[in-house]
Amino acid sequence: MDEAPFHRPAKNDFRWEGVECRPYKEDDQALFQAISRQVLFADPNSAAELRYFEVAPGGYSTLEKHEHVHAVLILRGGGHCLVGDTVSRINQNDLVSIPPWTWHQFRATDKEPLGFLCMVNAQRDRPQLPTPDDLKSLNANPAVAAFLRNAPAR
Amino acid sequence: MDEAPFHRPAKNDFRWEGVECRPYKEDDQALFQAISRQVLFADPNSAAELRYFEVAPGGYSTLEKHEHVHAVLILRGGGHCLVGDTVSRINQNDLVSIPPWTWHQFRATDKEPLGFLCMVNAQRDRPQLPTPDDLKSLNANPAVAAFLRNAPAR
Repeated sequence: MDEAPFHRPAKNDFRWEGVECRPYKEDDQALFQAISRQVLFADPNSAAELRYFEVAPGGYSTLEKHEHVHAVLILRGGGHCLVGDTVSRINQNDLVSIPPWTWHQFRATDKEPLGFLCMVNAQRDRPQLPTPDDLKSLNANPAVAAFLRNAPAR
Repeated sequence: MDEAPFHRPAKNDFRWEGVECRPYKEDDQALFQAISRQVLFADPNSAAELRYFEVAPGGYSTLEKHEHVHAVLILRGGGHCLVGDTVSRINQNDLVSIPPWTWHQFRATDKEPLGFLCMVNAQRDRPQLPTPDDLKSLNANPAVAAFLRNAPAR
């Protein structure tokens, strides 16, 4: 079939037909761990893309900030997220908005994977990673420090 | 809280805190039936919006076409969709792409609601409804005619 199919059925375990699953490599600096990415929609006629990220139990997404916004819906499991200096417990179908230039990270619990949809503009800037000074500032907040130690309040 | 919250928890039955649920009125011409809409994300910094539509058992969305594309993920239940002249059985987490100027409609089964996420460009054209001639052309295809009678092959 030359054209992209209209309908791409879900497979088991949050995979999709015709969608490549890209496991991220473990990062030496431990900025992210045990996360995979699947681009569900990236159409030249669309101004946005929809991706599915999955964090394995105990894993976490990159701690980063950027100009573009994220619109997130939790599709599988639960965990915690950091947005700015706010830590929230997140559950299936919850919505999370990441405003411009706001530190954010998603962490799965130890018990189950955390899978989420993330809508972004097709044209967007590259994420920025925290400097040692940024990390120092973030860790000055006890709730944020606990989150970053992967030990948020339960 | 003046600013929009970062985290909007899901409530029971596919509703969300801070998200208005708009039931569509029943349409005299029966172009759609028993469907509600919730706009989950519509941020001025985002080039796209993410909406959640829910079709009650036996209901259906508007049969329409337009220039803008839809990127759809089935979030709840199942049913059938028409895209162009293709009828597909759809299940939870399936992906459906609606290309430009392509007739499309979603129908729930009689047994359960059909809920789906739909990503669209924030700036988009208005949908066009079928003329009597369009409906005649569509109904010339037996599979499409069965779908429009709400009796697709099971």
